[in-house]
Amino acid sequence: MTDRIVLAYSGGLDTSVAIPYLAQKVGAEVVAVSLDLGQGGEDMESVRQRALDCGAVESIVIDAKDEFADDYCLPTIKANALYMKEYPLVSAISRPLIVKHLVEAAKAHGGTHVAHGCTGKGNDQVRFEVGFLNTHPDLEIVAPARDYAWTRDKAIAFAEEIDLPIEQTASSPFSIDQNVWGRAIETGYLEDLWNAPTKDIYAYTEEPDLGNAPDEITISFQGGAPVAIDGKPVTTLQAIQELNERAGAQGIGRLDMVEDRLVGIKSREIYEAPGAMTLIRAHEALEAVTVERELARYKRLVDARWSEEVYDGLWFGPLKRSLDAFIESTQEHVTGDIRMVLHAGKATVTGRRSDHSLYDFNLATYDSGDSFDQTLAKGFVKLHGLSSQIANKRDREA
Amino acid sequence: MTDRIVLAYSGGLDTSVAIPYLAQKVGAEVVAVSLDLGQGGEDMESVRQRALDCGAVESIVIDAKDEFADDYCLPTIKANALYMKEYPLVSAISRPLIVKHLVEAAKAHGGTHVAHGCTGKGNDQVRFEVGFLNTHPDLEIVAPARDYAWTRDKAIAFAEEIDLPIEQTASSPFSIDQNVWGRAIETGYLEDLWNAPTKDIYAYTEEPDLGNAPDEITISFQGGAPVAIDGKPVTTLQAIQELNERAGAQGIGRLDMVEDRLVGIKSREIYEAPGAMTLIRAHEALEAVTVERELARYKRLVDARWSEEVYDGLWFGPLKRSLDAFIESTQEHVTGDIRMVLHAGKATVTGRRSDHSLYDFNLATYDSGDSFDQTLAKGFVKLHGLSSQIANKRDREA
Amino acid sequence: MTDRIVLAYSGGLDTSVAIPYLAQKVGAEVVAVSLDLGQGGEDMESVRQRALDCGAVESIVIDAKDEFADDYCLPTIKANALYMKEYPLVSAISRPLIVKHLVEAAKAHGGTHVAHGCTGKGNDQVRFEVGFLNTHPDLEIVAPARDYAWTRDKAIAFAEEIDLPIEQTASSPFSIDQNVWGRAIETGYLEDLWNAPTKDIYAYTEEPDLGNAPDEITISFQGGAPVAIDGKPVTTLQAIQELNERAGAQGIGRLDMVEDRLVGIKSREIYEAPGAMTLIRAHEALEAVTVERELARYKRLVDARWSEEVYDGLWFGPLKRSLDAFIESTQEHVTGDIRMVLHAGKATVTGRRSDHSLYDFNLATYDSGDSFDQTLAKGFVKLHGLSSQIANKRDREA
Amino acid sequence: MTDRIVLAYSGGLDTSVAIPYLAQKVGAEVVAVSLDLGQGGEDMESVRQRALDCGAVESIVIDAKDEFADDYCLPTIKANALYMKEYPLVSAISRPLIVKHLVEAAKAHGGTHVAHGCTGKGNDQVRFEVGFLNTHPDLEIVAPARDYAWTRDKAIAFAEEIDLPIEQTASSPFSIDQNVWGRAIETGYLEDLWNAPTKDIYAYTEEPDLGNAPDEITISFQGGAPVAIDGKPVTTLQAIQELNERAGAQGIGRLDMVEDRLVGIKSREIYEAPGAMTLIRAHEALEAVTVERELARYKRLVDARWSEEVYDGLWFGPLKRSLDAFIESTQEHVTGDIRMVLHAGKATVTGRRSDHSLYDFNLATYDSGDSFDQTLAKGFVKLHGLSSQIANKRDREA
Repeated sequence: MTDRIVLAYSGGLDTSVAIPYLAQKVGAEVVAVSLDLGQGGEDMESVRQRALDCGAVESIVIDAKDEFADDYCLPTIKANALYMKEYPLVSAISRPLIVKHLVEAAKAHGGTHVAHGCTGKGNDQVRFEVGFLNTHPDLEIVAPARDYAWTRDKAIAFAEEIDLPIEQTASSPFSIDQNVWGRAIETGYLEDLWNAPTKDIYAYTEEPDLGNAPDEITISFQGGAPVAIDGKPVTTLQAIQELNERAGAQGIGRLDMVEDRLVGIKSREIYEAPGAMTLIRAHEALEAVTVERELARYKRLVDARWSEEVYDGLWFGPLKRSLDAFIESTQEHVTGDIRMVLHAGKATVTGRRSDHSLYDFNLATYDSGDSFDQTLAKGFVKLHGLSSQIANKRDREA
Repeated sequence: MTDRIVLAYSGGLDTSVAIPYLAQKVGAEVVAVSLDLGQGGEDMESVRQRALDCGAVESIVIDAKDEFADDYCLPTIKANALYMKEYPLVSAISRPLIVKHLVEAAKAHGGTHVAHGCTGKGNDQVRFEVGFLNTHPDLEIVAPARDYAWTRDKAIAFAEEIDLPIEQTASSPFSIDQNVWGRAIETGYLEDLWNAPTKDIYAYTEEPDLGNAPDEITISFQGGAPVAIDGKPVTTLQAIQELNERAGAQGIGRLDMVEDRLVGIKSREIYEAPGAMTLIRAHEALEAVTVERELARYKRLVDARWSEEVYDGLWFGPLKRSLDAFIESTQEHVTGDIRMVLHAGKATVTGRRSDHSLYDFNLATYDSGDSFDQTLAKGFVKLHGLSSQIANKRDREA
Repeated sequence: MTDRIVLAYSGGLDTSVAIPYLAQKVGAEVVAVSLDLGQGGEDMESVRQRALDCGAVESIVIDAKDEFADDYCLPTIKANALYMKEYPLVSAISRPLIVKHLVEAAKAHGGTHVAHGCTGKGNDQVRFEVGFLNTHPDLEIVAPARDYAWTRDKAIAFAEEIDLPIEQTASSPFSIDQNVWGRAIETGYLEDLWNAPTKDIYAYTEEPDLGNAPDEITISFQGGAPVAIDGKPVTTLQAIQELNERAGAQGIGRLDMVEDRLVGIKSREIYEAPGAMTLIRAHEALEAVTVERELARYKRLVDARWSEEVYDGLWFGPLKRSLDAFIESTQEHVTGDIRMVLHAGKATVTGRRSDHSLYDFNLATYDSGDSFDQTLAKGFVKLHGLSSQIANKRDREA
Repeated sequence: MTDRIVLAYSGGLDTSVAIPYLAQKVGAEVVAVSLDLGQGGEDMESVRQRALDCGAVESIVIDAKDEFADDYCLPTIKANALYMKEYPLVSAISRPLIVKHLVEAAKAHGGTHVAHGCTGKGNDQVRFEVGFLNTHPDLEIVAPARDYAWTRDKAIAFAEEIDLPIEQTASSPFSIDQNVWGRAIETGYLEDLWNAPTKDIYAYTEEPDLGNAPDEITISFQGGAPVAIDGKPVTTLQAIQELNERAGAQGIGRLDMVEDRLVGIKSREIYEAPGAMTLIRAHEALEAVTVERELARYKRLVDARWSEEVYDGLWFGPLKRSLDAFIESTQEHVTGDIRMVLHAGKATVTGRRSDHSLYDFNLATYDSGDSFDQTLAKGFVKLHGLSSQIANKRDREA
């Protein structure tokens, strides 16, 4: 029986030309798999057809937008997951979902190999390959960009060589990855850390300082998940999409950072994630009202570790699953409304209300109605500080 | 010998009238101690004189601005210290410095008691009192607001009763604490979490959306400390002051949060800290370039814990000192320049450069000059994922 | 309606005499509640009757041994919970169960107050009272030892004064708390840290150096719970009881430590916990075989924090519940057999086997059959060390 | 100029024959470097001569025992470093010291390559090679066992082929690594986890159950370092050596564990480390008396992470250095005496005394002299439990 390579297919030049190239190089048929993760652009049917035109024996298109939002973006919201306190894991959470569908396609279509387009110095190769090893280790992995130094130049030359009926688009200076959760941009001049990003690299966000009218919005959460915007019920996907629109229009969610890659180097990355950043900000603000102090303090450690595990390609690892169990157990009461003003690049929380609030007006107020018994403080202060008091006494005497 | 109360004296009505009140109530002389922490307002000599006018036997004024900046704000910058990821510890770091000077005054002037104006439901009483217990536990602590329910109304009545020559200022609806590092505001209507702050509560920051011209700034750090702004050498104090001006003019550093108090309740807090937030943001950006990944990941945990210890009033505790040792050891190479644009409420990092950078262009670039050996990735990926691969295999089989 | 005090009743002199004392002092009826937690000693029916003889209006005895084992000891095993790496939380886990039953009794019998016998400088008062505040904050708490300085001497005097028909037992020099999970001993001469414990203080363990024959034992676990000993099915309670016998006979599980109390002081504590220590040791050894590395590393942090939360009286707190969720999620595959030799004070693991093992002979062996691909190591080593390599290069150059 | 390989030379058959083999294979001269780390066995002069006999152009022997004890074992004591709570890092801490001396030899003797004898599936290759990359990345690394599948059989065949004047010792079934800090044993039959170790594998420890007289010992520490035994001053090296003798004679320090290797697999390991385990146990007991609670709790996390970093071959990494700074800052007051009884496989702490003790008899005692103010407890309990009380109230109502 012929070997079959299941290829993560984007529809772009590189992976299109890779179809005949891999078939020849590996001596195998190619099954193209394309996921709609809300990345926009071309319609998916054209993508599907192009793979066939390029010689794929099967071309599968999957609308995974809701699955991505519910099973990948939502846990990221619940974990307030910002790698290095900034990056909402735009590409990192899409890889395991692509892995899942490639593996399913391999099982359904007799796949023996799996192929992705990542290079050998980025994070995504790790996320893809650890994903395959974790979920279907029998698949042989082919990474043409890394293993065969497959480049745009080579792709163009090969397309001409075999007369492939594919239009050659003008080469973009940007390396882009995008989905409904956000957009990642790398490009040559940003490899100088002193250079500021230029305006032309952005697509999900407008310039923030245009003088738009402020946009007041109320996001409602139930059990940690966004369920309504301005009182209108939404799915997680709809919440992200609407906030991409509205927060994007205000220039919210642009990131410019130097990132610690898993492979050991630092790299400059630009992201746009208006919906993601707004939802995480709102979710954090609601947790501040509904999650108890000690749990909240510990959850911040767990959240950070969750982000690192996912960034590091260990989505399918056992630690990730147990961190999920922790996080899920904290979300039961993360229910309520957050009012924000979206404006000029900032999403500012201006109000919060919740039937599950832990804020107690009578304990907090300094006005009449105060029910806090201040006489308790004296004993608390003394015992709270006793162990350090004893230590300082020893230090002075020693 | 007569007992002497060393009083943390602000110059305001409450602590002014507290001078004769405490003298009578405790049967002791009062030594007033006032610190200039850059809080602005009245000149300190008037403050000093007022304490004497109200009956203090000694009135001491200390210019502690540089000490505060160097020994309290700077460690906060090095720790990127934001309690609950937001609050730069404005009041929390001022308390231990006040404690230090009150204790020195007690030693110099025969103090037997020490007094502060905090209530029994806030954090500051804990910070003051644990500070005293840790550094001079023999002092008896008096907290009139908590222990004698000393209020503004009582103060006014008592001032009239004893004919105290003090002007009665119009009562402000706000409860304010401020110093050069920032300003904290509490007020009645904000005790409803759904209410947004009104513009009149701010003093350190302009409204962010005024259409000011963007202000580009370059902050230079050496060993984690800000040492120059736009190439002009500055002390830490000058750096904070200049950024309070320039970032404040752009509306940067406003915070509106629900905070987990040490005494177990949640409270609504508004802060303005334009210099603090800008400096911490710049410092973090420089760390991203100069601190190695594993160290940076761990430091984020240590930073968070440092913030909690300081928030919780344990500045003088042994853990805080050891966390300092960790943090200090990470700062040696945090040297370089951060360029930011201050505008419309946001401080955006647009460039970074450092002779101590860990960013290696040749390893990072996707262009020619790439020196990263991509063949290493395969072995890395397989062993990086091996333990989870084995676990997933077991899970599938079990 | 008359107030009713629900009293945690041990049957001993102090709490017996406290029945009429509290009734008089508080002006309330007393409901005595006694739990059988496997502490041994007197039969529970005599205890029940004595409370009535002393004037209790109700006397309730509850056999909570299995509940204690299943819901309190078992989570302690799953968390490998040793506070300060030593103490298996003997008293700490019994308090929340007592709280639970006292609250139930209060609800069933009209209780308005709840009373316990703890002093004001130990941990147990905190565990009791935080437990009541967390589960039934309307109950008024009475702690006669702390609030009324109720001592043995006072109890004897009061018993004589009111002619209480209770035998006065010889006063023991030891302060003991015991249940099936272990036994805690405090006594005067051990308050000198240089003094070694004498043999007469032990009751659950024989002297370890008696020259007994070694006792080989196989403990089987399923999902983290002990389910069989030497092939014979057991409940958790039976496992603890059998190991108390067999490990106790070998002198296993004696602890002598200086402990950091929640109230801020250090104290000297002696414990015996033969079953607990043996089960935790076996459980840890099985986890080493069945839990993946990264999960195991993180679980050790979670375990430590779980121990601290429970020690600190926060059994009912939200963080404890979320830590439980994490831990529970790690136990699914902690299934298999641990063989140990119990002898001369030590429980030594000598073998482990599991269908859920992550140990892969073919990957581990250095003999023929080795399936580990050593060529992968080179790439792994280089990228594993790359970030520190870059940092060291920078350091040398700087 | 001729290339020169600096070889980590043990004197055994494999590395002896590797000298001419590597010279031929790489086309380079071999410089043999042997470290005396207290591993015992052959005298070092014979080792030195053998390398020359086998064709080394230089043969260097270094007495690194004190350096090893002071700069590698002592930090391990201060960190109470037990990987997976068990393994005192016997081999892990020796590798960086060997790296250091090989690099120095390379600089002194024109080394261009460096060679070690480790396989491609263990931890030690990582520790060696990351060490070289971190400290002298220009050296080319040769690992004959991994890169050329260099085995004992090959070594014997090659020795015969070239008529190498080397005695062929009887092949041991054990794979051993040993130094003054301990001894690591791997062997075929132990690769079955159900098999118990046999007595013949031990060399540093006697069988524990021989009925020896108990050995009472007092270890004195200053600033975390052992400085005297039974009142007689010792260096760190002497402390380890004396305890290897005395604790080894009592069968103390045997470990049998399943270990999580850095390369992703689990392996069975047997260790003997009588001195190490006794010193760490004593050091922990002294820390319990002299380190404040919050610092002690956090230090346990730092200690665990230190162990993992060192186990993972990151001795020279920046995180390790900052963890050292934390740990070092905790040791100032770890000064005092620990009395232990060494007997029958156990080192039992029976007494501790210290001028730097934080144990306060008057606060701890239940007898007369008690200075603890029990009235403080009430306020402490209520505020300590307040945040969870509010959360539980919310949970009941929700």
